[in-house]
Amino acid sequence: MTISSDQPRRPERHYHYVDRGPAIYLDSFATIRREADLSRVPSSAEKVAVRMIHGSGQVDLVDDLVVHPELVAARAALQAGAPMLCDATMVVKGVTRTRLPADNEVLCMLNEPEVPGLAAAWGTTRTAAAVSLWEPHLEGRSSPSATPPPRSSTCWRCSSTAHRARRRSSRCPVGFIGAAESKQALEEFHAVHGIDIPFVTVRGRRGGSAMTSSALNALAQEQE
Amino acid sequence: MTISSDQPRRPERHYHYVDRGPAIYLDSFATIRREADLSRVPSSAEKVAVRMIHGSGQVDLVDDLVVHPELVAARAALQAGAPMLCDATMVVKGVTRTRLPADNEVLCMLNEPEVPGLAAAWGTTRTAAAVSLWEPHLEGRSSPSATPPPRSSTCWRCSSTAHRARRRSSRCPVGFIGAAESKQALEEFHAVHGIDIPFVTVRGRRGGSAMTSSALNALAQEQE
Repeated sequence: MTISSDQPRRPERHYHYVDRGPAIYLDSFATIRREADLSRVPSSAEKVAVRMIHGSGQVDLVDDLVVHPELVAARAALQAGAPMLCDATMVVKGVTRTRLPADNEVLCMLNEPEVPGLAAAWGTTRTAAAVSLWEPHLEGRSSPSATPPPRSSTCWRCSSTAHRARRRSSRCPVGFIGAAESKQALEEFHAVHGIDIPFVTVRGRRGGSAMTSSALNALAQEQE
Repeated sequence: MTISSDQPRRPERHYHYVDRGPAIYLDSFATIRREADLSRVPSSAEKVAVRMIHGSGQVDLVDDLVVHPELVAARAALQAGAPMLCDATMVVKGVTRTRLPADNEVLCMLNEPEVPGLAAAWGTTRTAAAVSLWEPHLEGRSSPSATPPPRSSTCWRCSSTAHRARRRSSRCPVGFIGAAESKQALEEFHAVHGIDIPFVTVRGRRGGSAMTSSALNALAQEQE
């Protein structure tokens, strides 16, 4: 990267809003707690909801949040060294590394070289193909592999081989085609398949990498 | 990355929504055009609005969109090789490289080694400090530098040294503290400072990396 030989200068102040990063977070969280009805979220997940609202800029996001009562079990998994498995590189970038309790891996398979070929062969999205590569990292899977002992994941957002794995999940795809349906399926997963996967999701079309990584950052540690 | 020696398997189909990537885009855009009132957006920027709605999952985003009539001039700048300057690494990740018309650079200074020190010395956010390092890449700046001839940028979201630069701007910070005010300031920039910077922004608290990179992807090329 080429940088000017000029010394960079402090930007002039033209406006009077708060410009210190930590203060912005705290002021934002206080505003959210004043305005959002957080009573409908499990109390153990209140901070997860606050951060997701923060990432979306919308206090009414809480109306569409669905939070499994055991969601925060993901925190113990992370403390024990579990990786975060993400379906989008933007989510990976949104995870604040300094919040991770065990210098956890934050993985996304989307750019693995075999992904385009698998997606073409299977007639599916690159994301769905990439998620199929999570298998060795999942706890409770049935197939043998050459990988280290399987561990639990904390994020998935797309259709996948979920039946064979226990995991914690923050699953919030945004979109107009299939997104709402896929999240509905997640809500019904326990009833339909008999496997209870802790999750957080956002009903309807809203979702995306910002609120997903916000949820992961809240799960990574208790401290705001 | 350790990958299982097992062959990955195509995920089983449990649901019947569209699972081909390009088809999902086209179906989504058609849904948006049915549901959103795009008449209030300059016709040259209709595709920008559609993609931003797509990135947000909300057709009512159009109510808060403010689009400068000359926004799409950014497309010519990109075709001429201008870099994209982004304030967030999530935005960088959200830009689809295959859409860039001139293999354009997509730059973010946030992880430059001097940024934490500048932010501390100036008592400002890391993002604001990082944006001060854009200077050598901006067209119309007044200070000399050792860099190649200055070029125009297409994305900025934070307070910066905007007075000395002509640029195109997609500026959509999300948030509860300062975000709405900073976007209001952008709208008033021409009236207050006499400098006319083409921009797109989202009034209020909504915003963020997904809709910003969506705007950039729409500006990168006309084809959907």
